[in-house]
Amino acid sequence: MGGTGSVRSHAQIPLAMRKELFILKIGGQVLEDEEALQDVVQQFAARGGHKILVHGGGKRASQVGEALGVPARMYQGRRITDKSTLEVVTMVYAGLYNKKLVAALQANGCNALGMSGADANAIQAHKRLGAEIDFGFAGDIDRVDHTGIDRLLQSGLTPVFCALTHDGQGQLLNTNADTIASSLASAMTAHYQVRLQFCFEKNGVLRDPADDHSVIPLITHADYTRYRKEGIISGGMLPKLDNAFAALKSGVDQVAISSIHHINGLGGTTLTL
Amino acid sequence: MGGTGSVRSHAQIPLAMRKELFILKIGGQVLEDEEALQDVVQQFAARGGHKILVHGGGKRASQVGEALGVPARMYQGRRITDKSTLEVVTMVYAGLYNKKLVAALQANGCNALGMSGADANAIQAHKRLGAEIDFGFAGDIDRVDHTGIDRLLQSGLTPVFCALTHDGQGQLLNTNADTIASSLASAMTAHYQVRLQFCFEKNGVLRDPADDHSVIPLITHADYTRYRKEGIISGGMLPKLDNAFAALKSGVDQVAISSIHHINGLGGTTLTL
Repeated sequence: MGGTGSVRSHAQIPLAMRKELFILKIGGQVLEDEEALQDVVQQFAARGGHKILVHGGGKRASQVGEALGVPARMYQGRRITDKSTLEVVTMVYAGLYNKKLVAALQANGCNALGMSGADANAIQAHKRLGAEIDFGFAGDIDRVDHTGIDRLLQSGLTPVFCALTHDGQGQLLNTNADTIASSLASAMTAHYQVRLQFCFEKNGVLRDPADDHSVIPLITHADYTRYRKEGIISGGMLPKLDNAFAALKSGVDQVAISSIHHINGLGGTTLTL
Repeated sequence: MGGTGSVRSHAQIPLAMRKELFILKIGGQVLEDEEALQDVVQQFAARGGHKILVHGGGKRASQVGEALGVPARMYQGRRITDKSTLEVVTMVYAGLYNKKLVAALQANGCNALGMSGADANAIQAHKRLGAEIDFGFAGDIDRVDHTGIDRLLQSGLTPVFCALTHDGQGQLLNTNADTIASSLASAMTAHYQVRLQFCFEKNGVLRDPADDHSVIPLITHADYTRYRKEGIISGGMLPKLDNAFAALKSGVDQVAISSIHHINGLGGTTLTL
């Protein structure tokens, strides 16, 4: 232990010695808007240091599925993934969107490497069982290979993850991109001081969902419990914030939620324990 | 020069000191046949040492394109790649087929990493110009980053390349999988003794195309010139063999052409200068 490149647990590396890692999650809608895409790619590429990009891609997957006779079936905002749907999301997430991002990042001087969780066995998951309904080939994450991912980062590469994992038995699994970003962030705390940022269509967590200027700049876990009780934060924000606080509890240094216009700067909502 | 990990040209590393690298190219039809796929994946995964897999994927791309209202347009066996066609091949090659292979290899204990030429900036190309017709987003290879690919191999990964490259300016390009395999093989001679194998639907190069038992076991370049003149080798075999001999001339140690049933064993056609 302790030799160069050996695996050391979080606790063994003093905080001040750990390098920084920035993990950015972007939604699929950014990938359909050429201007927004270029904006995100330029901001992300310009940022120095180690970084990882995670992307979704739901909307286009639904369109491609529709055209191929595989209409999207959703349950509480999550896609039900039968065999044909898995083929569609594999095409759109790992193919179209992932390579579009990688090529754009390369053009901006960022040495991107597109990955699913199957690639380099980075993220292993199991098929979700025991849910209220059968989500099909939906995966819940078991293990992130932080040592392998660190090796890629150390060799100067920037992993770009799509929302797919695998079970290690040859089965690809559809896995929520927010969850992938949080799990990566938690696992990478073994090697890094991690800052995790979720970008979405709003400016941040809003006090009034109808007013995009009502961003709450800072939310502690106590605030979150209160806002939740008071109904100020509800609906689709709940799983996002649950993910975010889970990441903070596991040792992630900072979590932010913002629009794509605040990737490197101020603005948006910062979450803290 | 000469330090550990520095780039050394082919001539500077004595032949006997260079490690072996096996590069296998498989056609898209293997990926549509579950039994053939498992057979190839098991044979390839079982092989020890450094290795790279390259795959095509034409047939399914044509089907998906047809369903999406983007029918395939071919010219002399090569796909004309307009913007919509590029999206289709990116979905099928880099998404569906690449991840299917990666997940299957992982299940067989091979630490596969799926890549296009854009990933890790591995293969840079330029848009084909000056052809008889406009092939659209078709790429001719300029540069293979053999040092970067060697780094991935040295860290225990097995790259799995689909038939896509990029121009470094953000544009993905459709590039023939045979050509990708040959270019990789040639470039990797800087670090390895390279064996390149093309798998296709026949048992090897046939004396009589109608008789799958008429495999020519060994073809020298002089033989090739003669067979060509005599019309024994013609049609679709010519670009395949041109590719193969170009690889041999650039320093690749051995090139073989066979069915998927002879990946690690005897059989098929061996080419030599």
